Amino acid sequence: MLTLLHQTLCPHSRFVRLILGEYGQEPQLIEERPWERHEDFLKLNPAGSLPVLIEEGQPPVPGASIIAEYLDETRGAEQGEARLLPISISQRVEVRRLMAWFNERFFDDVSGPLVGEREFKRHMTVEQGGGPPDSSALRAARHNIRYHLAYIGWLVQTRDWLAGERLSYADLAAAAHLSAADYLGEVPWTDNDAAKHWYARVKSRPSFRALLTDTVAGMLPSKHYANLDF
Amino acid sequence: MLTLLHQTLCPHSRFVRLILGEYGQEPQLIEERPWERHEDFLKLNPAGSLPVLIEEGQPPVPGASIIAEYLDETRGAEQGEARLLPISISQRVEVRRLMAWFNERFFDDVSGPLVGEREFKRHMTVEQGGGPPDSSALRAARHNIRYHLAYIGWLVQTRDWLAGERLSYADLAAAAHLSAADYLGEVPWTDNDAAKHWYARVKSRPSFRALLTDTVAGMLPSKHYANLDF
Repeated sequence: MLTLLHQTLCPHSRFVRLILGEYGQEPQLIEERPWERHEDFLKLNPAGSLPVLIEEGQPPVPGASIIAEYLDETRGAEQGEARLLPISISQRVEVRRLMAWFNERFFDDVSGPLVGEREFKRHMTVEQGGGPPDSSALRAARHNIRYHLAYIGWLVQTRDWLAGERLSYADLAAAAHLSAADYLGEVPWTDNDAAKHWYARVKSRPSFRALLTDTVAGMLPSKHYANLDF
Repeated sequence: MLTLLHQTLCPHSRFVRLILGEYGQEPQLIEERPWERHEDFLKLNPAGSLPVLIEEGQPPVPGASIIAEYLDETRGAEQGEARLLPISISQRVEVRRLMAWFNERFFDDVSGPLVGEREFKRHMTVEQGGGPPDSSALRAARHNIRYHLAYIGWLVQTRDWLAGERLSYADLAAAAHLSAADYLGEVPWTDNDAAKHWYARVKSRPSFRALLTDTVAGMLPSKHYANLDF
């Protein structure tokens, strides 16, 4: 039995939920508010960040990229061609490069500020960093997302999926971060058809269904959020 | 033949140099100034960050944690008990957790601001972000390092090495970041004896020698930097 400490719109948590979905795992999901810094949570992950995966008999696995490696070693190795981190050394480099690109760069540039400013801050006290959204952070994120969409579009013009011929962690990471922004209606899909078609393919996978039924209190998803033909 | 694009005081580059040293690899080192954003460099790593490892027949491997995984798969697997990312799944979680702790948290809190403000900014134009060091960033880093030293000291009070019974990536990552701060005379060693003794053990390893002979133009290392009995 797997348990995932997560936040509904946390892009890193969504990435792990997609991996688990692809590997046929149904974790118990527990919402955690890392900004409240609960002592029990900090014992599980001293870094105080999400997500954290709990599996009996193992130490808590903290952070999206460490969880991805853990799931590759404990689940992926038996998946054959459906393995999300491919066997070939050179492909592993490319998948990890893009996984880091989205989990770090895209998060810093786009999904982190959008979700932090528009969703998480609503639940924080002033001491925890709460308050109204910082409009200059939102403006920068809305500017940056166009470059990232263009990069995704450029990648899928020569490849079936972001890192090559098969679905990989790269696609799930990118789609997870975009899905959080899309919930907020912050993805300018008309900007890039190639990126939009790639996202439609990822979005239609069964692993995505649970994300599309997510809602957060006090904020409805954008109208097209759950629509497979958006 | 391995080539490493690096910066002398870049903590992430130093981490990779230590791994290569432990595995008996002598890379060709090429200094790169990522803030100059050379086109050839951005082709190798679109993220524009250091280090980047080049091995013939493989794609360029960008970033310390991806390089660490790459070297584990191509070099570590044949190292037996000297493997720096241990075989046991639970130990791999702990080593990766601490590796990320130092490469991300310690870097953001301490080594990034110290090296960025005191060394890299000297070589940047104003447009590239150069200028005098930001004294509030330095003050925060000097405050934060004490908590990190205490955490290291706490870890090695119950373990031989940071992640367990053997030297691992966790030790090399922590020591790499500390070594960059130590070059600048920024580590308050008298604060924590346990942390100091652990560092002395890592520092005395043959893999560390090349780092101890490093110098950067226009800034001498701290007096005790290369001293094994500091």
